Amino acid sequence: MKEKSAAENRGLLLVFTGNGKGKTTAALGQAFRALGHGMRVAVIQFIKGSWKCGELEAAKRFSGQLDFHVMGRGFTWKSDDLNKDIAKAREAWQFTCDLLQQNRHQLVILDELTYLITYKMIGEEELLTGLARRPKEMHVVVTGRNASPGLIDAADLVTEMREIKHPYAWGIKAGKGIEF
Amino acid sequence: MKEKSAAENRGLLLVFTGNGKGKTTAALGQAFRALGHGMRVAVIQFIKGSWKCGELEAAKRFSGQLDFHVMGRGFTWKSDDLNKDIAKAREAWQFTCDLLQQNRHQLVILDELTYLITYKMIGEEELLTGLARRPKEMHVVVTGRNASPGLIDAADLVTEMREIKHPYAWGIKAGKGIEF
Repeated sequence: MKEKSAAENRGLLLVFTGNGKGKTTAALGQAFRALGHGMRVAVIQFIKGSWKCGELEAAKRFSGQLDFHVMGRGFTWKSDDLNKDIAKAREAWQFTCDLLQQNRHQLVILDELTYLITYKMIGEEELLTGLARRPKEMHVVVTGRNASPGLIDAADLVTEMREIKHPYAWGIKAGKGIEF
Repeated sequence: MKEKSAAENRGLLLVFTGNGKGKTTAALGQAFRALGHGMRVAVIQFIKGSWKCGELEAAKRFSGQLDFHVMGRGFTWKSDDLNKDIAKAREAWQFTCDLLQQNRHQLVILDELTYLITYKMIGEEELLTGLARRPKEMHVVVTGRNASPGLIDAADLVTEMREIKHPYAWGIKAGKGIEF
């Protein structure tokens, strides 16, 4: 029993990576589960639009428990000005570090964070340091393709979502309630 | 636009399989998203305890919209009497077919359904026929390890959740709000 309570006090780092569907959806499920336990949850979305109206509507049922921050509004990774993107990514990362330090949440979801490393917006070392400095009991979920080796190493649990079958024009076929 | 509305009318079959964490969690996220859109959702759980208190608590916020059925209470796949297990699995499958035909839900989640084929509780052919007979607009999510080739073939989208890193004694480490 002693072992269990000690373990419960340590926050975990979960990573959902890979090229398949289900990374953000699993993070959403994780949020839902934590909310059900009365935990406070923050979602930081690094890419515009990866969380859609369905979850935002559902989240309203948990007002006061769930904070939702969209960082990606400014950088869709299609900007003509790379320096502007980098500046916005660094701002987003600073916001994240501040939120972690504020310790107001038991679970923080960093959705599509891996892109910031992939596109060298922030360094892996810096990211790992920021995550390691989070409050001891805070759980963090990171999603995104191509999780870097250091991130995988630092994580407690890593699942790769592999695309086995993914129809052409999925977004159109899936539509309301499934894809968004 | 015409194409889109036609596509929206066709329900999809999504499969989350593989040995990694995140299959049920992604299905849960899918449910959450659909609920946010005001859709009616049913969850049928084929293995005892794969959905835990966190999501059941969260689900209460959507009462009237979400129906939750636990089929696995009777068969934990550890019974001494295989025939009893088979009978219960067949009952569960019949219940599922009836629920699909009732057409009261826009999304139905069949959690851990693949085990019924893996353990030859029901035939793949029978399962595919039951799924194919569902109302045209109904979306179905199937989760579980070792999705069979026929199921993968019938699905619109398949993601394999691969375990990259999964700590020993995960259940103990993860604890409330993360694992259950």
